[in-house]
Amino acid sequence: MQLNCDLGESFGNWRLGRDADVMPHLDQANIACGFHAGDPLTMERTLQLAATYNVSVGAHPSYPDLVGFGRRSMAMSAAELRAALLYQIAALDGVASCVGARLDYVKPHGALYNDMMAKDDVRSTVIASVAAYPKPLKLMIQATASAGEHREEARAKGVELILEAFADRCYDDDGRLLARSKPGAVHDHATMMSQVRRLVSDRQVTTASGAQLTLDVDTLCVHGDNDAGVQAIAQIRQIVDER
Amino acid sequence: MQLNCDLGESFGNWRLGRDADVMPHLDQANIACGFHAGDPLTMERTLQLAATYNVSVGAHPSYPDLVGFGRRSMAMSAAELRAALLYQIAALDGVASCVGARLDYVKPHGALYNDMMAKDDVRSTVIASVAAYPKPLKLMIQATASAGEHREEARAKGVELILEAFADRCYDDDGRLLARSKPGAVHDHATMMSQVRRLVSDRQVTTASGAQLTLDVDTLCVHGDNDAGVQAIAQIRQIVDER
Amino acid sequence: MQLNCDLGESFGNWRLGRDADVMPHLDQANIACGFHAGDPLTMERTLQLAATYNVSVGAHPSYPDLVGFGRRSMAMSAAELRAALLYQIAALDGVASCVGARLDYVKPHGALYNDMMAKDDVRSTVIASVAAYPKPLKLMIQATASAGEHREEARAKGVELILEAFADRCYDDDGRLLARSKPGAVHDHATMMSQVRRLVSDRQVTTASGAQLTLDVDTLCVHGDNDAGVQAIAQIRQIVDER
Amino acid sequence: MQLNCDLGESFGNWRLGRDADVMPHLDQANIACGFHAGDPLTMERTLQLAATYNVSVGAHPSYPDLVGFGRRSMAMSAAELRAALLYQIAALDGVASCVGARLDYVKPHGALYNDMMAKDDVRSTVIASVAAYPKPLKLMIQATASAGEHREEARAKGVELILEAFADRCYDDDGRLLARSKPGAVHDHATMMSQVRRLVSDRQVTTASGAQLTLDVDTLCVHGDNDAGVQAIAQIRQIVDER
Repeated sequence: MQLNCDLGESFGNWRLGRDADVMPHLDQANIACGFHAGDPLTMERTLQLAATYNVSVGAHPSYPDLVGFGRRSMAMSAAELRAALLYQIAALDGVASCVGARLDYVKPHGALYNDMMAKDDVRSTVIASVAAYPKPLKLMIQATASAGEHREEARAKGVELILEAFADRCYDDDGRLLARSKPGAVHDHATMMSQVRRLVSDRQVTTASGAQLTLDVDTLCVHGDNDAGVQAIAQIRQIVDER
Repeated sequence: MQLNCDLGESFGNWRLGRDADVMPHLDQANIACGFHAGDPLTMERTLQLAATYNVSVGAHPSYPDLVGFGRRSMAMSAAELRAALLYQIAALDGVASCVGARLDYVKPHGALYNDMMAKDDVRSTVIASVAAYPKPLKLMIQATASAGEHREEARAKGVELILEAFADRCYDDDGRLLARSKPGAVHDHATMMSQVRRLVSDRQVTTASGAQLTLDVDTLCVHGDNDAGVQAIAQIRQIVDER
Repeated sequence: MQLNCDLGESFGNWRLGRDADVMPHLDQANIACGFHAGDPLTMERTLQLAATYNVSVGAHPSYPDLVGFGRRSMAMSAAELRAALLYQIAALDGVASCVGARLDYVKPHGALYNDMMAKDDVRSTVIASVAAYPKPLKLMIQATASAGEHREEARAKGVELILEAFADRCYDDDGRLLARSKPGAVHDHATMMSQVRRLVSDRQVTTASGAQLTLDVDTLCVHGDNDAGVQAIAQIRQIVDER
Repeated sequence: MQLNCDLGESFGNWRLGRDADVMPHLDQANIACGFHAGDPLTMERTLQLAATYNVSVGAHPSYPDLVGFGRRSMAMSAAELRAALLYQIAALDGVASCVGARLDYVKPHGALYNDMMAKDDVRSTVIASVAAYPKPLKLMIQATASAGEHREEARAKGVELILEAFADRCYDDDGRLLARSKPGAVHDHATMMSQVRRLVSDRQVTTASGAQLTLDVDTLCVHGDNDAGVQAIAQIRQIVDER
């Protein structure tokens, strides 16, 4: 089991995230590419940090929406989306190579991530775009009950998936996340830690209905925006390492 | 003598330039990278066009200023400018590699180009940024009376220059362009063609004062925004080819 | 019957539309507010043109999407949309007042216009935003078979509608436009002119099925992006004036 | 003596400033207009806060540079700058009127503020733009040894100035601020408080050279980005009120 986190989400004068505190605990850093966050200088510095700690780098591309932080679905054409993805992947890849970091994968951000999970045409465009990039890159998506089909779909285009589960989110019986608006959607610290332990030891989660769901999962997504988040990441790191 | 032209300067719904008509006549295409013009889809399509005609590609990075088309000088720090350059170069490089085009050089755009020629610290940052990019890239700047020193300065950092002259602009005795606001700054068609012939045959221009100035020049910059421009480029291509 | 047209859709160095040629023929100018087109200087100049010809001004606000020209639907929250509308209306209103033009109404642009016609919640937010502006403004929307309900809905919030029909577009029997992808969706010149004559004289259109549909319509939307468009507008002006 | 502070400098998902804690202590709130910070929703909420505490509102316009937070000088033409200022003033004015806040003045932000103080042509354009706005607005600039001339210059165009001093910055003998890079440029808490007391009681500051400089000052600029800043503002409020 690996740990991944969204980093590099500052923008110019605005700071977001505790990147320097979080990076040492990660296996994989999803780094913003300038479309929802992450100006060029922020990208360069975050990539240097990833290089320092030898953390695998993922491009974290988004719909072009700084003011909405990439959280608003946009009706882009497949050609627009493909070009926007390749642009962001390329920018991150090149800057990574300037500072000695290595780009290994792509993880779409925010509304694009949700659309990719919910809409076949968006997922197809994302997979095709990753496949079109000349350097072999993996694609990180959510581990759901459809993980097997997703792996199949991606492999057909020559793309290997990295499947992620969320440490702090409650699942439904289909392996989807409960909407944040619903009660119990985000776990408290103790529940998060027990979910992490189950995922690490058995690849299982207890769903909202109380059922046990097995997830085909490669990596855990963690969040480090504040002190509590940073401390939780350190604990989760320990749980993973102890196995 | 080679021919270069700024291309890919449309943006979304706004069209600029006669790229498809101009590309077949060029040796080098300076392609906008999204900061003054050139959204991802425009970039991809322009790069496909360059690949089709086997035209050498230059990244044409700019200050971040879409509304000003990169024509307004901005007081960026050296670190900001470096990161912005690497981001734009990387984006173009990666998208080029997706469509089978090859990135060979960098030519700064607009106010950044002017600042690079006028200010030692900006030129130094530009050269250092090109040098920092892992793939060897040349830098295209203006051929002036200081060409020798500029070649020296770049070589010291491992960067080879491509020096360009302008087909349609009047020079002063130091090899700088007359400001556009001055009478005679932009040549009529006949004067442009005779300037091109002299440059191609003798690397010389007649300056505003009537003096003969020899320029160390590798490439001619041409403009193809309208019918007249496209026709002039075709004629200049012929002049170059006839040598 | 009045004539309205989208104007002020240039952006910085990029020119779009034949505003100076079109403005003399209009009753109402829908002027871009900076979110899909129309930088501040373009806005100021377009408003001066409207003032010169004493043309009524409409704010033409959009989703925030320059690269997509406001043509891509975005999942904005009601609060975000309301604030974005008020910002754009306010900007245009204030600049109009600086140059002696008068803001009379609001006409949403592109995807926002389509969403307003198709989705009750978007239309409700648009109406509420226009109502929230301290100066009384009308709202221009499409004249469909639901015109009566739309007038009612707006009046309940104190907003008067201006209903528009399209000179060059084919209608279905519900008074909606045929999708541009369908054959016959955009009329040729002769059909456009006869549609204009019917609309001006009888408020009727012949739909795609050949039925006669009466539309409650106050104004005709015309387009002036090129020579043919400008000439058509002049002809339509004459048809309207002859009544 | 009044107190003013820059507020509304969040942007979308990025938070900056302790606006809710600071607003109750202010007389004047300089509110970002979207060009360096302050999206429409942030503007609306900040203006509601100003209305709640009956704080006078200033438009805080900037060069168009979100990623640089308006801190980088840009070579805008006078026509571009004028239009950009009117657009931002108008946007804030209109949104203010929607929420019951009142726009009273304009205070340029960051690099534009510095350029306005340093360059006659920029200051002239700023004054002319404020004068061109149909509603009478004051202009807030720095109180320097040239305050008298500045008041004269503005009055000649019908604009009244509000002159501000800085609580926490060290002055030179011409009433300019010491560059932040110089030692002693920013006061510690105790020095700041004694500078505030002298300014409030005598309109005097002790300069870097130890001289006493009398400033024609109407308002003190304070900063509330963190706990210490908020507490300092509360103390300064008390000092001002006790007079």
